[in-house]
Amino acid sequence: MTRFALVGAVDFNEKVFRVEHYDVLIAVDAGYATLKSRGLTPDLVVGDFDSLGYVPETENILRFPHEKDESDMELAIAHACKADADEIVLYGCLSRRLDHTLANIQVMRSCAQSGVRIFGVGCGFVLTLLAGPCRIAWEAFDPAMLDAEEYGRYLSVFALGGPAQGVTERGLLYSLENAVLSDTASLGLSNEFTGAPAEVSVQQGDVVVIFSEDAWPTVCLP
Amino acid sequence: MTRFALVGAVDFNEKVFRVEHYDVLIAVDAGYATLKSRGLTPDLVVGDFDSLGYVPETENILRFPHEKDESDMELAIAHACKADADEIVLYGCLSRRLDHTLANIQVMRSCAQSGVRIFGVGCGFVLTLLAGPCRIAWEAFDPAMLDAEEYGRYLSVFALGGPAQGVTERGLLYSLENAVLSDTASLGLSNEFTGAPAEVSVQQGDVVVIFSEDAWPTVCLP
Repeated sequence: MTRFALVGAVDFNEKVFRVEHYDVLIAVDAGYATLKSRGLTPDLVVGDFDSLGYVPETENILRFPHEKDESDMELAIAHACKADADEIVLYGCLSRRLDHTLANIQVMRSCAQSGVRIFGVGCGFVLTLLAGPCRIAWEAFDPAMLDAEEYGRYLSVFALGGPAQGVTERGLLYSLENAVLSDTASLGLSNEFTGAPAEVSVQQGDVVVIFSEDAWPTVCLP
Repeated sequence: MTRFALVGAVDFNEKVFRVEHYDVLIAVDAGYATLKSRGLTPDLVVGDFDSLGYVPETENILRFPHEKDESDMELAIAHACKADADEIVLYGCLSRRLDHTLANIQVMRSCAQSGVRIFGVGCGFVLTLLAGPCRIAWEAFDPAMLDAEEYGRYLSVFALGGPAQGVTERGLLYSLENAVLSDTASLGLSNEFTGAPAEVSVQQGDVVVIFSEDAWPTVCLP
């Protein structure tokens, strides 16, 4: 099990970033400054360095031209996949500009389709992509630990890239059993953790799952 | 040409909201408080009023139960479509929680597929959905008018719900001509207005287009 953390430029909650959890730490462009300011040295730096404003002086660098078809984050994810990552967690890439957020979700979907577990940590929330057949699960927990001011007990599931077939949600306030989730409706918004063991699974198609950063799941791939 | 403004609970930039531009003004749940605080009376109030915390005393109200399959915004959009809206603009629904933002984008896509022009105004940006064949255009303008601190000159286009075919981007820094845009890649991120007349069009499939709130387009449907 090889875990990669990819750190981008946007703010994220320090308490959810535990560097010791990861085997490889990659700074993506201005994410380099974020890591340095915390006294952390990445194993690799990836980017065109337009956002950072300078090219880091290190041998462990993948430098790309400014004009390219892929975002720096997409290139960093591609590198992690090639390096046989089993799990990739993105920090600092989902909480500022919506255009960048949507681009990252698109690329995360591609990554999930290739069988790599992928999470994105935003401000207050975690997002993951499941490409069917796939399942994500939570053990029983005290829902009072969830920060009600932010994403609270809510968990949302949306189909992406077409309808998702065989969607099951169990142990939550509202249950779904082998349902079809449209990708042009709001059904899937604001289900709620109850504290019971919970799971979300999809048989065919892709879903994005969003929940509080305090409710990190146990993931089970098929 | 009947224009509807739907106002949700989240903050938005007052300068881009010109009530006189609209034929019908709908408050969606806590958006009622937003409008009242600005001295505006909506033509209709829609919601379960969980967010608002009380039920407005008005006859022009569509009240729904809390437990339902559609979000309040989806129900308000459905009402506007039934009432023969030609254009719907959402305010206060794209800039806080990402789960709500994604749900609203899904519903906006459905609306675009039914032939209704739909825009969402966030904090600093505007987002629209094009269901092919469809075209959006901008007249020549001075790009210095765009706020570089926010979305600046950038314009992003992403396929949703599968690849988009026949995507053309003209008058921008990077051109696309009759291209296929994948919905699992970041290509489409951060094109740039140059000030020249610009356009984005798609022949088949759906795209979301995101740009500065200062760059309101002229829209041409086929």
